Amino acid sequence: MDAAEFRRRGREMVDYIADYLENIEQRPVYPDVEPGYLRTLIPTEAPTEPESYEDIIKDVERVIMPGVTHWHSPYFFAYYAAASSYPAMLADMLCTAIGCIGFSWAASPACTELETVMLDWLGKMLNLPDHFIAGTHGHGGGVIQGTASEATLMSLLAARCKAVRHVQASKPEKSEGTIISELVAYTSEQAHSSVERAALIGGVVMRKVPTDNNYTVVGDALKKMVEEDKAAGLIPFYFCATLGTTPSCAFDRITELGPLCNKENMWMHIDAAYAGSAFICPEFRPLLNGVEFADSFNFNPHKWLLVNFDCSALWVKKRADIIGAFKMEPLYLKHENQESGLVTDYRHWQIPLGRRFRSLKMWFVFRMYGLSGIQAHIRKQVALAKEFESLVRADQRFEICAEVIMGLVCFRLKGSNERNQNLLKRINTNREIHLVPCQLSGSFVLRFAICSRATESRHIQQAWRHITQMTFELLQEPSH
Amino acid sequence: MDAAEFRRRGREMVDYIADYLENIEQRPVYPDVEPGYLRTLIPTEAPTEPESYEDIIKDVERVIMPGVTHWHSPYFFAYYAAASSYPAMLADMLCTAIGCIGFSWAASPACTELETVMLDWLGKMLNLPDHFIAGTHGHGGGVIQGTASEATLMSLLAARCKAVRHVQASKPEKSEGTIISELVAYTSEQAHSSVERAALIGGVVMRKVPTDNNYTVVGDALKKMVEEDKAAGLIPFYFCATLGTTPSCAFDRITELGPLCNKENMWMHIDAAYAGSAFICPEFRPLLNGVEFADSFNFNPHKWLLVNFDCSALWVKKRADIIGAFKMEPLYLKHENQESGLVTDYRHWQIPLGRRFRSLKMWFVFRMYGLSGIQAHIRKQVALAKEFESLVRADQRFEICAEVIMGLVCFRLKGSNERNQNLLKRINTNREIHLVPCQLSGSFVLRFAICSRATESRHIQQAWRHITQMTFELLQEPSH
Repeated sequence: MDAAEFRRRGREMVDYIADYLENIEQRPVYPDVEPGYLRTLIPTEAPTEPESYEDIIKDVERVIMPGVTHWHSPYFFAYYAAASSYPAMLADMLCTAIGCIGFSWAASPACTELETVMLDWLGKMLNLPDHFIAGTHGHGGGVIQGTASEATLMSLLAARCKAVRHVQASKPEKSEGTIISELVAYTSEQAHSSVERAALIGGVVMRKVPTDNNYTVVGDALKKMVEEDKAAGLIPFYFCATLGTTPSCAFDRITELGPLCNKENMWMHIDAAYAGSAFICPEFRPLLNGVEFADSFNFNPHKWLLVNFDCSALWVKKRADIIGAFKMEPLYLKHENQESGLVTDYRHWQIPLGRRFRSLKMWFVFRMYGLSGIQAHIRKQVALAKEFESLVRADQRFEICAEVIMGLVCFRLKGSNERNQNLLKRINTNREIHLVPCQLSGSFVLRFAICSRATESRHIQQAWRHITQMTFELLQEPSH
Repeated sequence: MDAAEFRRRGREMVDYIADYLENIEQRPVYPDVEPGYLRTLIPTEAPTEPESYEDIIKDVERVIMPGVTHWHSPYFFAYYAAASSYPAMLADMLCTAIGCIGFSWAASPACTELETVMLDWLGKMLNLPDHFIAGTHGHGGGVIQGTASEATLMSLLAARCKAVRHVQASKPEKSEGTIISELVAYTSEQAHSSVERAALIGGVVMRKVPTDNNYTVVGDALKKMVEEDKAAGLIPFYFCATLGTTPSCAFDRITELGPLCNKENMWMHIDAAYAGSAFICPEFRPLLNGVEFADSFNFNPHKWLLVNFDCSALWVKKRADIIGAFKMEPLYLKHENQESGLVTDYRHWQIPLGRRFRSLKMWFVFRMYGLSGIQAHIRKQVALAKEFESLVRADQRFEICAEVIMGLVCFRLKGSNERNQNLLKRINTNREIHLVPCQLSGSFVLRFAICSRATESRHIQQAWRHITQMTFELLQEPSH
């Protein structure tokens, strides 16, 4: 395919994409396929000779689309949102075309520099403390990670390295292995599974802190565990707080937890993967109070800030903590400017070496929407969640299971878990809307998350009519 | 921006991209900017109100392009290739638009299933042993990772988990921490820095195995170290072999190393990040002989197989080894089919939770080029490297520093390292071509890698004329 054909096919693809997104609600949101469906539809080996583009694009509808869960359908209410916007898509095309691999400043200065400035822009939109902003006299700065999982892992590894060095400074005879086996990390029992996984990867113990009735970790709960562990001769070194948990969008009380971590010399990382985007609205910003005590803070613009996946924003209070943990300098990656102290080599800030020019997506989105436009998007989705909450509350058969603060409503039919499992199964088998469950205090709960940018009030109303219809059918069954 | 505007702007972006790539050689390959250049060109904060698209796109030329290192210029000969092709770009647009997050089968069945089949296609193109192919009776399969760094880390973590369990089976009293502190991993002294970094992350000791005159690890070199470590009471558990090292594209002798690792119950991972693509050509496939002894094998289609970044292919002999290391099952990620044994939930195979629909890029590229077209691309680039090698060999002032097997030529001016450092500095400051150095046996060496798909013989000839001109000027200087 030469440039001339790319011009033609590219235009067709742009139209295909616009058609797909304009008409997405006509497709069943959840696919009706069995495991292994795709293998039977295509050859077992790659072709030896080139095929025509027409044949390939025909196969997108024949092979791919029947097996797609349509995350951008206005009837998709599962997991949390995955961001999507036209400006981000245009920027992503440019990113792919430039195709630089930005592991060091020299590998493409614009890639590194735009990222640093975009993380500053975003940090200011969130009103983060100055020490997280690179363009200040502080020692911190931001970086784009692929996912919150990677951001959590980087923070835990940086904390582990810092703790080992701290212990060895006073007890040089202790081996790294011995110290690591004495370290203890903490997180909420409601934290995302990736947090526990980070501890497994890092080879450290992680203890789950119990939450209160609102699924919130409060200061005293952590304090009690830290004291127990210190009394047992262990070394508390890391706490991962969550702002907006995955099951119910609960918020840990970081104004209490932060000072405790600072006093105990524990690294506090904040995982606000979903909810973080909302902090650009002044009315939600108080939920981030306490961030000034944190060593690192992360959220995913690729969830709720209109920047397509992947784009997870991580800020650290001290660049040296994260860079120092894993710096490697082979000659083939050295460049003239790196010793000047003026440049950032982002490869030291992340697990992978290679990296895409992802900040272009942020730049396009921030400028095409403006802060006011992005705030309007957040507010609209929160209002839709409140609208759904009202519908649930007005129906005596149902209950709301957690406070609705952002775009997530946790609800259930009053009664047994089995009844709710059956309801969810009926809903998802029907494929008109798509939800996933969670577990709260032993109850099986349905999560209704406002996800798609295309979701409007009429979709919420239709979804609720559908849920009540499914409920009606369920309750009609002889077994009930 | 609505769909109608996206149609218009999308077409413009397609044309901008085609123009950029068609005329890329008219841009200086390496940017003439100082650290911090970009911050002065744009505002310090995001705009409150939306800006016009015209203003943003104008800024691409004003702000971004002056700071881009043009990896796809035919005069870019640095690092290793980053793949780029029009079919991959089209597929990437589709991937972004579908915008599913494929962490589990249910999250988008097509995303998981196409990936499994594409890894099978590619495995067959490489003539991998059956046990790596998912659609066989074996226990293995393939997965797309972001980068080779992540693939290496995953293999090391899986090996660590397996080793801990193996030791604990006979010595249940040993703690995980104690066992980890006794483990020893090995890799070539020529291995990529990401291998050593994986060991740092995993908290295990990694020893560097010395290479022979060809920068190759041979069986006896590893055997000697393993025996020393066993005698000292340590537990050798992992060896990362390299096929195509970063400094000189050297190949470890895996036909000797594989049987040794199998005998010693050590996991053998093969990192063929760059060279792996060439194994689709029968004439290069013998370099992969010995892969049948490996537990895992990885290379980067995003380097040399025309699939844009990111797309790193990893195969494992036993799925259970990699999945078992880090499986987490929160309720919100469970789905009906996962216990059937028929589905793959790729989130267990990787560090991140989220993942893009990257296999679309492979599907488009394999079908639009056909195996024969991709082989032709590899062969053309190897021939260009041989052409450059001949030019160097014909000039008595220069020497070739490592056998030229694929698309990399390591060369230097005879004489001091300082002379070569000065030559490289002169070349890169001039910005007509771009190279990076490496160190081989204490010598400062220039690496000339065939990178861009657009590179032709005339660019090689021009690059060599330029290098000899720079050499002439350097040798004219009074200090010489």
